Amino acid sequence: MRLSRYFLPVLKETPSEASIASHRYMLRAGMIKQQSAGLYSWLPLGFKVMKRIEQITREEQNRAGAVEMLMPTIQGADLWRESGRYDDYGQEMLRIKDRSDRDLLYGPTNEEVITDIFRSFVRSYKDLPINLYHIQWKFRDEVRPRFGIMRCREFLMKDAYSFDISMEEAVRSYNKMFVAYLNTFARMGLKAVPMRADTGPIGGDLSHEFLILADTGESEVFCHKDLVDMVVPGTDIDFDSDLQPIVDQRTALYAATDEMHDQAAFEAQVPADKRLSARGIEVGHIFCFGDKYSKPLGAKVMGSDGKEHVAQMGSYGVGVSRLVGGIIEASHDENGIIWPKSVTPFGAGIINLKVGDAEADAACEDLYSKLSTAGIDPLYDDKNDRGGVKFSRMDLIGLPYQLVVGPRGLKDGVVEVKDRKTGEKQNLSPGAAINMIIFAYKDVNP
Amino acid sequence: MRLSRYFLPVLKETPSEASIASHRYMLRAGMIKQQSAGLYSWLPLGFKVMKRIEQITREEQNRAGAVEMLMPTIQGADLWRESGRYDDYGQEMLRIKDRSDRDLLYGPTNEEVITDIFRSFVRSYKDLPINLYHIQWKFRDEVRPRFGIMRCREFLMKDAYSFDISMEEAVRSYNKMFVAYLNTFARMGLKAVPMRADTGPIGGDLSHEFLILADTGESEVFCHKDLVDMVVPGTDIDFDSDLQPIVDQRTALYAATDEMHDQAAFEAQVPADKRLSARGIEVGHIFCFGDKYSKPLGAKVMGSDGKEHVAQMGSYGVGVSRLVGGIIEASHDENGIIWPKSVTPFGAGIINLKVGDAEADAACEDLYSKLSTAGIDPLYDDKNDRGGVKFSRMDLIGLPYQLVVGPRGLKDGVVEVKDRKTGEKQNLSPGAAINMIIFAYKDVNP
Repeated sequence: MRLSRYFLPVLKETPSEASIASHRYMLRAGMIKQQSAGLYSWLPLGFKVMKRIEQITREEQNRAGAVEMLMPTIQGADLWRESGRYDDYGQEMLRIKDRSDRDLLYGPTNEEVITDIFRSFVRSYKDLPINLYHIQWKFRDEVRPRFGIMRCREFLMKDAYSFDISMEEAVRSYNKMFVAYLNTFARMGLKAVPMRADTGPIGGDLSHEFLILADTGESEVFCHKDLVDMVVPGTDIDFDSDLQPIVDQRTALYAATDEMHDQAAFEAQVPADKRLSARGIEVGHIFCFGDKYSKPLGAKVMGSDGKEHVAQMGSYGVGVSRLVGGIIEASHDENGIIWPKSVTPFGAGIINLKVGDAEADAACEDLYSKLSTAGIDPLYDDKNDRGGVKFSRMDLIGLPYQLVVGPRGLKDGVVEVKDRKTGEKQNLSPGAAINMIIFAYKDVNP
Repeated sequence: MRLSRYFLPVLKETPSEASIASHRYMLRAGMIKQQSAGLYSWLPLGFKVMKRIEQITREEQNRAGAVEMLMPTIQGADLWRESGRYDDYGQEMLRIKDRSDRDLLYGPTNEEVITDIFRSFVRSYKDLPINLYHIQWKFRDEVRPRFGIMRCREFLMKDAYSFDISMEEAVRSYNKMFVAYLNTFARMGLKAVPMRADTGPIGGDLSHEFLILADTGESEVFCHKDLVDMVVPGTDIDFDSDLQPIVDQRTALYAATDEMHDQAAFEAQVPADKRLSARGIEVGHIFCFGDKYSKPLGAKVMGSDGKEHVAQMGSYGVGVSRLVGGIIEASHDENGIIWPKSVTPFGAGIINLKVGDAEADAACEDLYSKLSTAGIDPLYDDKNDRGGVKFSRMDLIGLPYQLVVGPRGLKDGVVEVKDRKTGEKQNLSPGAAINMIIFAYKDVNP
């Protein structure tokens, strides 16, 4: 993309309403614009990052055998009356009346709708297990939206729903999602720790939150240090194999959010030098709640024993839009964002220090064309701004690599390659710079 | 995808509520499920087709220089009061009150929000032209939702918005979208005809609807026959070149929807043997409305003349979800859907006539693996159903090619390849069958 044809409204000033790094940098880097309290437009740069996070989430869901579909944002109230949650859910649910005065709502979650789909079509244990997911906008009418898209009202979530014939099978489905989540967050460059968590309005006994550690996290968390750097299973894992050992390896070590924390158990189970108490950001939450929805909604299948069984369910959420903020909280410095290569909106930035200079223009066009062909998707700053403006803008938006092209370097046959994360700079021939960047991305998307 | 691990709830009976082919086949092929009046879940097969249509739309928008972003589904009412449309829009707008009793609405279109974004960030003619688009769910509270997803309440639309310094430039932006739309619909296997159309609640003078011809179309249309088969510009067109001749070539010939139709002009301008009157389905609509929104909302930029100019705007819609139905209306037979190769949910179907037979299983696995590697994304019917059930299911869901694998054919070293559209069958070695299918798809996605 050429910057002259892009829409990247960066701000010079730090907006006063933004109290945390992700909110500040998303506004300054022209990633979002607030439209009303807790309602945001995703400007092109922010949208692109969100799409990459969505795609990684999708690929790992598919790999684990979940099947994608889509439920509407607006739901009828009837199913929620059947499950008993219409009155329970409280004021966070956005309730709506249509022109015929029927009760609708903007879905805050989808257990009811998916259970209705299941009961409409599935009759036999032979069709199980099933895990259906969608990536859809949700609405929760927060009383005090804050922290930009981290606690807003309309947000994008991946939610999956599994159906099994027995609780034993349901745990197998749960484990698949547990493992898929480890891989999902690792691919985004995050260290996410699964923790025992409160189940809130979703319900059930078995539940884990996945949290990334960041000073600005909304929850206090307590865990065994070894969990943070534990190696993830990897995307070549066989999801049909027994995944219990992988889950056990994690759940054997203490990890809890503040609601579930037990200080005595923490001290008893974790040696003092391994105790980590920190702040965390929730990026995923998985639940196994058995028949909580299938029973009131009558979602039953015929078993191999010739009897009807109520389906045993789980649900599994990833906060897709919130992850954009979460990744920034985990990866930034005083100059701006530092994107992990797997989610960066553009693979590299090209800075032309002298637009209009025939040699500089030609060198930039050549880099742009070759990197584009190689699938690096570069952003070419071809605008008529001063060098300082270009450098600080490129640092702010956080692309992993910057290629700085100017007449002086070209005289010596080199361009400058800057690593955004380390700040390291090196002068390379244009060909070597291209090869270096292609090499750096070769294992990014498995 | 293996059918045993997919969720494809096909129906044997034709649902009584479905009066048109697309609605009937989308229900029978397990593509959608109605949740409430005019609200649908997109089951995996339907979702996959919609995603392919979305992706073609996106690629052609990007090619024409439009930049993707995303606006929220829920909007504050204030901007609509500023533009004067809050009261004008009528009961089709879903009006909502949040927990603090503020007026919100579910966006039926986004002129107000995008104009607000523009006025917040753009100051100079140097930043123009800009064309921003998003692919987002909209809601129109139809008094009588019908025809499945063809006239439902929550629907997916691509809407683009262009901003220019003058009306002359705005027409250039309009022409880009005009040409992009010709390519977009052609890539989906459709013959879409641009027609002068009423501008309705969007406004403006210059406007074209893009209609595909189908007996079940909601509008009566009148046009010169030559428009239907006119060659499209093609995706290698240079969008920076003068596109007016391409637009003129079309607009020189008579074409109008019933609201704009003038029978006398039709007869005067079109020779009798070239007059086509038919029914059409609207799949796109483009508008150039100048300052209708930019003026009340104060969206101005500084011109090269040092003076402030109100931005001249256009908006451009594609009915992404509705196209799923539109394509079925244009392409089906008595046995089911016939997908164009560019939007088919799977590239080919593999039917195993004897699951459990070692040779048949091995041959199918081999086909499945090789087609998957080649990017054909096959659907492998590995279920334990009778042949007749498998044949009619595969015809119903309409994949362009079927590979029928059974012990009898394998004895002769062949599998049967069926072309869904022509019904033609041929016996080929598995290797030849794979090559034939790969060859058939080689030019599908430019």
